[in-house]
Amino acid sequence: MTTLINGEPGDSISVLDRGFQYGDGLFETMALVKGAPLLWDRHMQRLFHGAARLGIDAPPESLFRHEAEQLGRGVERAVLKIILTRGVSGRGYAPDKQAQPTRTVSLSPWPDYPVAQRAHGVAAQFCRTMISRNQATAGIKHLNRIEQVLARAELEQDCREGLMCDEFGRVIEGTMTNLFIVSRDSLLTPDLSHSGVEGVMRGLVLERAVELSLETRVTDIDKSDVLQADEVFLTNCLIGLWPVRRIEAKQYPLGRITQRIQEAIADAYAAD
Amino acid sequence: MTTLINGEPGDSISVLDRGFQYGDGLFETMALVKGAPLLWDRHMQRLFHGAARLGIDAPPESLFRHEAEQLGRGVERAVLKIILTRGVSGRGYAPDKQAQPTRTVSLSPWPDYPVAQRAHGVAAQFCRTMISRNQATAGIKHLNRIEQVLARAELEQDCREGLMCDEFGRVIEGTMTNLFIVSRDSLLTPDLSHSGVEGVMRGLVLERAVELSLETRVTDIDKSDVLQADEVFLTNCLIGLWPVRRIEAKQYPLGRITQRIQEAIADAYAAD
Repeated sequence: MTTLINGEPGDSISVLDRGFQYGDGLFETMALVKGAPLLWDRHMQRLFHGAARLGIDAPPESLFRHEAEQLGRGVERAVLKIILTRGVSGRGYAPDKQAQPTRTVSLSPWPDYPVAQRAHGVAAQFCRTMISRNQATAGIKHLNRIEQVLARAELEQDCREGLMCDEFGRVIEGTMTNLFIVSRDSLLTPDLSHSGVEGVMRGLVLERAVELSLETRVTDIDKSDVLQADEVFLTNCLIGLWPVRRIEAKQYPLGRITQRIQEAIADAYAAD
Repeated sequence: MTTLINGEPGDSISVLDRGFQYGDGLFETMALVKGAPLLWDRHMQRLFHGAARLGIDAPPESLFRHEAEQLGRGVERAVLKIILTRGVSGRGYAPDKQAQPTRTVSLSPWPDYPVAQRAHGVAAQFCRTMISRNQATAGIKHLNRIEQVLARAELEQDCREGLMCDEFGRVIEGTMTNLFIVSRDSLLTPDLSHSGVEGVMRGLVLERAVELSLETRVTDIDKSDVLQADEVFLTNCLIGLWPVRRIEAKQYPLGRITQRIQEAIADAYAAD
């Protein structure tokens, strides 16, 4: 792996960085193909929106872009991850006034997502670990991810993703993906105003679905909606789209609308 | 500041540490007086309980003790902070199988808590930032602290602490303290089974209150309970106990039960 920390090659950060002390920061994970990060503008838009929400004074987008291109030069395919924290500060929840944000830009190897998962689909399960509700942190991709770590640890051997529900039994998302279901020819995805991460691929899917004239709704979805759905799929910026073929005892077909969406976003992920 | 990282003096950790990547870890903050950490056994008990809850394989208590004593040698008074994370791992919520926990033990200067705050009390306020509910993370002192950071940033100039409520309007705790109220000679403190940190000083106060034959209850408390209380106080292991003398427009006396509790825990904090 190669990392730039505030623009300089490095592999360590200060023990006083608020990212380490409090998870006080944000991240973005994206595909890099032939040296260029995919869906860059959307990732930057979410990062800057998150920084504004947390009151972190983000450096200019051009700096991130320059560093991403520097790392990506000559690279065929990799994962590009950016972390932005509130920076180094003394102890306590109130940061030092002079604290300057820390940014890290890293490349790591492309993960092993077999093409069969995209083509034929995956199995998923419901997790017992709840996702919490808080409008102050919902939607943004912040560094407080213990809930996702605990949910991920529940996955059974044959499941590729776990779905997380809030306290009221609403299904919010997967540990690392957003959820879509197709019900009576409508495309539905959970409302994320109280929990969850507004995925960049989720945003693209919603736009492309409208261009395809699909009826599309952001709404509350519970477990029975998922189990009674005609089609289910998961999205993120690395996998693109995974059809879900089984959740617990329920089997799903490889659906027609799922395949139309998959074709409609094919330009935006790192196809094998 | 002086820090030991896995037993070695240092000031930086790997950018791949899961504490930095996901806030995937725990911490303890305690007073160190004349070279010895106060309430050590209680802090270790909470740390090991948290590690078990998160599935982090903590190193033996004797190692933490040895390192705390090493840093504390000859020190009159300081803050001792321990961080324990799931360690260095590759990208993704599932940790590498070979990941080993990271521990940091640090000393930092004793903060400026004027004696007047303990003797005469402080003003507090209610925060707009909500504290989220999740039984998976409630009670333990984990590193996911963005909510506390956002709430702390709300504090008005003259307020020393902000009280955080859950989605149902229950008052849970301060950003860095636990809350107690006295109502008709009973001592009440919020139930923390869904939100909040079970403070070490809170535990001591509850025990000492029972020894003083005070009627003591862990229960749900809402804003009106706080505003109608006879006495209000806040606790943590660095401040000991702060009487609350004002919340918004409501004034409180320096109460008799508050003072009895303060005397009863005087051996357990770093009195000036």
